[in-house]
Amino acid sequence: MTWTKKHLLDIESLTAGEITTILDTAKEFKAVGERAIKKVPALRGKTVVNLFIEPSTRTRVSFELAALRLTADIINFSAEASSFRKGETLKDTALNLQALNADIIIIRSPSAGAAHFLSRVLNTSVVNAGDGAHSHPTQALLDVFTIREKKGDLKNLKVTILGDILFSRVARSNIWALTKLGAKVTLCGPPTLVPGVFEEMGCTVTHDVNDAIADADIVNLLRIQHERQRRTMFPGTGEYTSLFGLNKTRFKQLKPDALIMHPGPINRGIEIDSDLADCERSLIMDQVTNGLAVRMAVLYLVNGGHGPQGIAA
Amino acid sequence: MTWTKKHLLDIESLTAGEITTILDTAKEFKAVGERAIKKVPALRGKTVVNLFIEPSTRTRVSFELAALRLTADIINFSAEASSFRKGETLKDTALNLQALNADIIIIRSPSAGAAHFLSRVLNTSVVNAGDGAHSHPTQALLDVFTIREKKGDLKNLKVTILGDILFSRVARSNIWALTKLGAKVTLCGPPTLVPGVFEEMGCTVTHDVNDAIADADIVNLLRIQHERQRRTMFPGTGEYTSLFGLNKTRFKQLKPDALIMHPGPINRGIEIDSDLADCERSLIMDQVTNGLAVRMAVLYLVNGGHGPQGIAA
Amino acid sequence: MTWTKKHLLDIESLTAGEITTILDTAKEFKAVGERAIKKVPALRGKTVVNLFIEPSTRTRVSFELAALRLTADIINFSAEASSFRKGETLKDTALNLQALNADIIIIRSPSAGAAHFLSRVLNTSVVNAGDGAHSHPTQALLDVFTIREKKGDLKNLKVTILGDILFSRVARSNIWALTKLGAKVTLCGPPTLVPGVFEEMGCTVTHDVNDAIADADIVNLLRIQHERQRRTMFPGTGEYTSLFGLNKTRFKQLKPDALIMHPGPINRGIEIDSDLADCERSLIMDQVTNGLAVRMAVLYLVNGGHGPQGIAA
Repeated sequence: MTWTKKHLLDIESLTAGEITTILDTAKEFKAVGERAIKKVPALRGKTVVNLFIEPSTRTRVSFELAALRLTADIINFSAEASSFRKGETLKDTALNLQALNADIIIIRSPSAGAAHFLSRVLNTSVVNAGDGAHSHPTQALLDVFTIREKKGDLKNLKVTILGDILFSRVARSNIWALTKLGAKVTLCGPPTLVPGVFEEMGCTVTHDVNDAIADADIVNLLRIQHERQRRTMFPGTGEYTSLFGLNKTRFKQLKPDALIMHPGPINRGIEIDSDLADCERSLIMDQVTNGLAVRMAVLYLVNGGHGPQGIAA
Repeated sequence: MTWTKKHLLDIESLTAGEITTILDTAKEFKAVGERAIKKVPALRGKTVVNLFIEPSTRTRVSFELAALRLTADIINFSAEASSFRKGETLKDTALNLQALNADIIIIRSPSAGAAHFLSRVLNTSVVNAGDGAHSHPTQALLDVFTIREKKGDLKNLKVTILGDILFSRVARSNIWALTKLGAKVTLCGPPTLVPGVFEEMGCTVTHDVNDAIADADIVNLLRIQHERQRRTMFPGTGEYTSLFGLNKTRFKQLKPDALIMHPGPINRGIEIDSDLADCERSLIMDQVTNGLAVRMAVLYLVNGGHGPQGIAA
Repeated sequence: MTWTKKHLLDIESLTAGEITTILDTAKEFKAVGERAIKKVPALRGKTVVNLFIEPSTRTRVSFELAALRLTADIINFSAEASSFRKGETLKDTALNLQALNADIIIIRSPSAGAAHFLSRVLNTSVVNAGDGAHSHPTQALLDVFTIREKKGDLKNLKVTILGDILFSRVARSNIWALTKLGAKVTLCGPPTLVPGVFEEMGCTVTHDVNDAIADADIVNLLRIQHERQRRTMFPGTGEYTSLFGLNKTRFKQLKPDALIMHPGPINRGIEIDSDLADCERSLIMDQVTNGLAVRMAVLYLVNGGHGPQGIAA
């Protein structure tokens, strides 16, 4: 299916066909990262801006390298160093970047809707790198890319997402991507963080971790934000680990071909046992590698690329 | 006129002919920004350093992109991250950068005279990106570029600069550039911030905003630095807006072809009404776009370019 | 001698032949910095990461420019902006960077052994840019490069290192490099900071500055870390300057062809008289220029280069 969109704002507005086009394109770009010369001229002379209003070195670096490998010029513009200090609005900052002939603005913001807002006020392409608790589409895309790479078709695959679902943009975007591609999604965590309302998104909700992982093909563990967790909603990390952490006992209950994922950075010993994070059934490093390929694909497509044909020359 | 200078330190030491050479060169580079591949090899293999002792993301980004579009290598070196912490002097830092075979050092500093000082101790080309309340030559050049683009010849054009003139390097550099090109400059603002002594620079000084804007061709609004304004000299932002802000009532008093400028970032609702900032007679975004072209021209010229001939290939 | 190592972790594990190969390779790259186009394609399409867990703008910039001049893609990743805040371990951060297909990770860390640790857990090449008080191999290499450039063979050359030896990774790496190349090393400073145990490394130890400098061919002055000096071990900067600083009186006692070095940034008037730092017998700026050439050589060699043949085309 030919890609025609100018922005990547969320997963909910994509069709299954569009998601598949991104994944197919990313597959081509992944091969570029394995070459001796990891560079293609696809975005030569284009200007990409990393507009990060929220600190995130990992995502920033992944997008920065994606742009460099496409031979784009990339500018980092972070809120801490920016004129937001002086009271300038997000809109004015973005208009300024557009006036510098930016081709793509990648935005990470603590405010849900920031990327959508920019897409309405700018002519420039906008890529959402995470907006509040709303959406983190490239994370979901790299997750489904990684699952497809290991498991093939996602149709009827059983994926369990474990952790703080309520406030997680990663969970929300994953649910959209997985269900659109036909996977069966189970959500699990403390009742305060995994309310039953998620069943309306087509998921199974449970608070029993043994139920949740028993027949899962994939277990995706979310990061516990223990340093800023809402006290009133969260039992404490020790209790969380005991009730929901993936330890060796629970690992033995998994199906023999079940695989483990985590968006990173991991808290070793909290949501996952340290050895399990590094074991051969962990896909955590694959996710990082695939994230770069997915981001190359997204930058390429929103800039006018149509799909995987002929890109990696 | 052929350019021969090694540095760009201020406007006062330039001839009208030299200013015109910069503007003509910038015009060629502006066309580069409108191409699909926004890059020329003019500074390939050259090293440009952004030495920013004062935070300024906008100006830093504009110079950074200018260098990238000229295919230079660019290094960002900011004071907060630097060994200034350890007591190293500006001179030693600059000598170190020179020893790395830097070709051009762009310096932003809170100290008036910092760029001139570096030009005396270094063999490297120096570009002043703002030194205390003294000078901000690329801002003035982008302003006269924008005026020339919209109004043609500046001779006898009436330009009003409104705001905190006394402490503004933007105002000072604009006055030099405008008067050298033959424009008639009127300065307006509270008496404490716009003293009569500016008449010695060839300007008209008034404290009556209606007088100041009545027959202006251009109204250039300076930013109110409200977060650090000297209390004893400034009436408060509410009072400032009421007395000197460009609101819709005052806008109606302008000549129908008068245009609005502002160096940014704007304080919406303080020195300018928010709608007016975005109206079609506002040149604020043109200024940003033209700033990049002017900075490409300046980097090109101080590195040994002579003028606009044959640069954009 | 053909280079075959994958990492540069310290000086002690290098042979004299390997050190000489680095110096010979750096000599070729130094010539690149003197060209109009200061760039070679040696690392085109390679990804280099500056992983700086400790602030150091000068070393970071030197490595960054080295990578750019080799046409590599370079990413800056500093601890202050990173997810170390969120409790991620150094190992996980490094594994993530490896998963982005990084070819070389340059690590600066306050922890002795950090670079060695990474070399054991990663497949990526690792370059030590300073680890605690342990090692700073590229500083030692640029120092011996500079000495060789000015004095020819190091065999039996007399080198005095003056200052806080005990906690200095620069001193430690210099001692290894100098003794391996056959120089005679004298260490001098307050007894608390220059204990006799250094004689076991093959050095002469003295606390009398006149003895230390009388027949030195090179005097290498270490930086006094006066802002964080251990109070109980250090006499105070005034007393240090009086007892050990290189002032004009002491300078006259040097041999007429003795040369002065300092790793920078210098404290003018503390460990060295300001005029002497800038005099023609000071090699301080040569050290900076040579540091870039040495770092280009190191990046080139750990990435699979074998030596100086045919690199500068």
